[in-house]
Amino acid sequence: MLSRWFATIVVVTAALVPGVGRAEVAGKWVAELTSPTLLEPAYIRVELARTGEAVSGTWGTETVRGTLKGSAVSLSLTDAGGRDAGTLTGKIEGDAGSGEGKMAGVGRRGGRGGVGAGGRAPVLQEVAWKLTRELTPPAKPREVNYEPTTFQAYYYAGNKPGIHIFPGDIVHTWAPDSAGTDKNLKRVALGGNPTIGPIYVEGALPGDTLVVHLIKIEPNRKTARQGSRIQQFGVTPAYNLAARYDPQFNGEYQLDNATGIAVLTAPTPALKNFKVKMNPMLGCIAVAPPGFEAMTGPHLGVFGGNLDYNGTVSDTTMFFPVFHPGALFAFGDGHAAMADGEVTQTGLEVSMAVDFSVEIIKGYQTQGVREEDSDYIISFGVAGSLQEALKVSTAQLATWIKHDYGLSDSEVALLLGAVMKIEVTELVDPEFNVVTKVPKTSLAMLTKQTARD
Amino acid sequence: MLSRWFATIVVVTAALVPGVGRAEVAGKWVAELTSPTLLEPAYIRVELARTGEAVSGTWGTETVRGTLKGSAVSLSLTDAGGRDAGTLTGKIEGDAGSGEGKMAGVGRRGGRGGVGAGGRAPVLQEVAWKLTRELTPPAKPREVNYEPTTFQAYYYAGNKPGIHIFPGDIVHTWAPDSAGTDKNLKRVALGGNPTIGPIYVEGALPGDTLVVHLIKIEPNRKTARQGSRIQQFGVTPAYNLAARYDPQFNGEYQLDNATGIAVLTAPTPALKNFKVKMNPMLGCIAVAPPGFEAMTGPHLGVFGGNLDYNGTVSDTTMFFPVFHPGALFAFGDGHAAMADGEVTQTGLEVSMAVDFSVEIIKGYQTQGVREEDSDYIISFGVAGSLQEALKVSTAQLATWIKHDYGLSDSEVALLLGAVMKIEVTELVDPEFNVVTKVPKTSLAMLTKQTARD
Repeated sequence: MLSRWFATIVVVTAALVPGVGRAEVAGKWVAELTSPTLLEPAYIRVELARTGEAVSGTWGTETVRGTLKGSAVSLSLTDAGGRDAGTLTGKIEGDAGSGEGKMAGVGRRGGRGGVGAGGRAPVLQEVAWKLTRELTPPAKPREVNYEPTTFQAYYYAGNKPGIHIFPGDIVHTWAPDSAGTDKNLKRVALGGNPTIGPIYVEGALPGDTLVVHLIKIEPNRKTARQGSRIQQFGVTPAYNLAARYDPQFNGEYQLDNATGIAVLTAPTPALKNFKVKMNPMLGCIAVAPPGFEAMTGPHLGVFGGNLDYNGTVSDTTMFFPVFHPGALFAFGDGHAAMADGEVTQTGLEVSMAVDFSVEIIKGYQTQGVREEDSDYIISFGVAGSLQEALKVSTAQLATWIKHDYGLSDSEVALLLGAVMKIEVTELVDPEFNVVTKVPKTSLAMLTKQTARD
Repeated sequence: MLSRWFATIVVVTAALVPGVGRAEVAGKWVAELTSPTLLEPAYIRVELARTGEAVSGTWGTETVRGTLKGSAVSLSLTDAGGRDAGTLTGKIEGDAGSGEGKMAGVGRRGGRGGVGAGGRAPVLQEVAWKLTRELTPPAKPREVNYEPTTFQAYYYAGNKPGIHIFPGDIVHTWAPDSAGTDKNLKRVALGGNPTIGPIYVEGALPGDTLVVHLIKIEPNRKTARQGSRIQQFGVTPAYNLAARYDPQFNGEYQLDNATGIAVLTAPTPALKNFKVKMNPMLGCIAVAPPGFEAMTGPHLGVFGGNLDYNGTVSDTTMFFPVFHPGALFAFGDGHAAMADGEVTQTGLEVSMAVDFSVEIIKGYQTQGVREEDSDYIISFGVAGSLQEALKVSTAQLATWIKHDYGLSDSEVALLLGAVMKIEVTELVDPEFNVVTKVPKTSLAMLTKQTARD
């Protein structure tokens, strides 16, 4: 362990002090691959060692051997079956390298599967490659105060990051409400679920999973607003046709973080004693969606977005599939409380103070968004109807448990049929979100088996 | 109060000792109305008093005045606005009467709305009428041990009742499992969710609500069986296409009522420590469906049926719209436990010992099935998709709260959007069931307003 620790320190030094590496190829790198057959760059982790002019190591899942003469590098790749997986040539100088060659296994778009995680094209393709040193988080996690000044109107990988953070950093920040107003009710962004940043997470690559620890989510002002009409997907057409909604109805609440209770600012006689137990949550939480997709704030998908889950609260951990370098994490749309399904198209909308930290699971990508709280593992399913959203959610949950515990299909089915819970979290947005979950107490009873494919 | 109590005693005596009434018209009656314009009989509650030859009282919501000469009766009906609502003539002798005439307000099929509960036809129609004495429950509720010997394969009003009970009776009985086997694993009925009885509830009429107190639901044998495939509506087609289910997988459990824990009889290595917390419930619970509808055991609807709600457990109260005299209550399909949605097409299927009692809410009919437990009021929504089932459920819940608390549409919307919970209870049967519910703690904060229409 000591030698590994020492190696880490060396790499940190190399990363933080440019030029130290000189012509040294040894260390951890990230390769960016481009090719006429790729819609967007692919990324792959590379680790090299050098003895004299001999170079060895790994290039993704391939074994690499080659030579370094001066700055000229020549590498041959071999797959796990001993087959030729490519040849690369070029130069490595200091903390950068580049070149050309042929490689197998490239050709999936960034995103599901990704390079090195299945779906490999079997033929060699021409590629251009660039190497950059993999950054290593500071040995001691930092406290980062982030005052957002950029806000996303679209979930989109082209947005310029508002900040770069490292895994382990504890970030103190805030997000405006869905209308784009801050703790002083000042407009800082257009309405429609603006999200902060995005936040670039150093070291996250397509094919990874971004782990987000939501340490604290708390309203940072005293008032919230809630809608007072049942949205079209929340009730029968006949009900809404007969309903006489009051366009002047005042849905403003006074929030009290100390007691955790919200009361209406100007209640009608029927609601003069009505209190809502606060359950501060983030309605929108996302990484950048796959490829060049760009979606406005109300949307949701495999990347997260406007998930509107009232279980996305303090002391939970979320998991996002990473589709782009840096993941481009973002959140907003705070709710002081919200019923299941968000049937009034809003929760108690409020800006939020948020503390969080992140980790990266390298080389493993969740199918969609997941969460864990103290009691459950939780799978999000997003689709165009409740029915399909539920199917997607269950499929991820079953696959997840099969992967982690090595259960058979019959065993997983029995487990889900006995203990699975379903929550309809969001039914008023362009896509629907259904959550399925299994108690950790039930998972703790499982005896792990050798993982099946 | 004394006089009312005395009157009740008199009627009980009249009901239980035929012939006592002789030519007396005074008392409570049930009128059965038939007409060429009715698909099926309509029923209406009648209360008459007599002074000499003068008769007065109520006929449903109408005021009635008339004469009794010997056994010949002649009655005129007037509605709340003082308008002519009909004229009836005939004979009343002992505890029966019959005749003909014309009446307004008849012409809705039994069921939603019903006679006297809205939907009145504005024109007088020819009717034939029969009067029978309304039975009154015994002053002291009885303990009834019911050993079922008849089982319904169809929810259908034409089924012959297995027993007649009174509101207040405490009934001790049992129901076979979904496969039609009893506590000794002996087949007593065909599989496919056979239900006991049906049970005729004296005094229940179309347009009423049947209230069922589920006192105890407990497995009456030691083994249950669960499916081990995820049903088609529970997961993506791609998942099930790849799944290799073991057709020999043993989903039998051993049940322990004392500890409330179920364990697999012959677990696989992965599941050797797997335990399920029992939550004994009735999958099927129903009244006879409207009109001549007949549906097999797997179906569900506004009448209940295969609702498969894992909240239908001991110490809950259910509410059913009554569509036929006697309601024709029935249940079966016990589950020792079941996850949300019944994704394996079964719970832990087992026969059940059941204790229950019933009440009738006269002249008020719920839109669909409802339930209350100690914490929530609960609305069932049944439809052909999860989406539509949820809409139906929410519409009933909102209407229910508006009715009971006199809230405006905006107030109800705000309440639901802040505190409503959604449960997907059943997604594997011919129809889908979604439950919405509101905590009683929130309802207790409401200040009742004058009811709105």
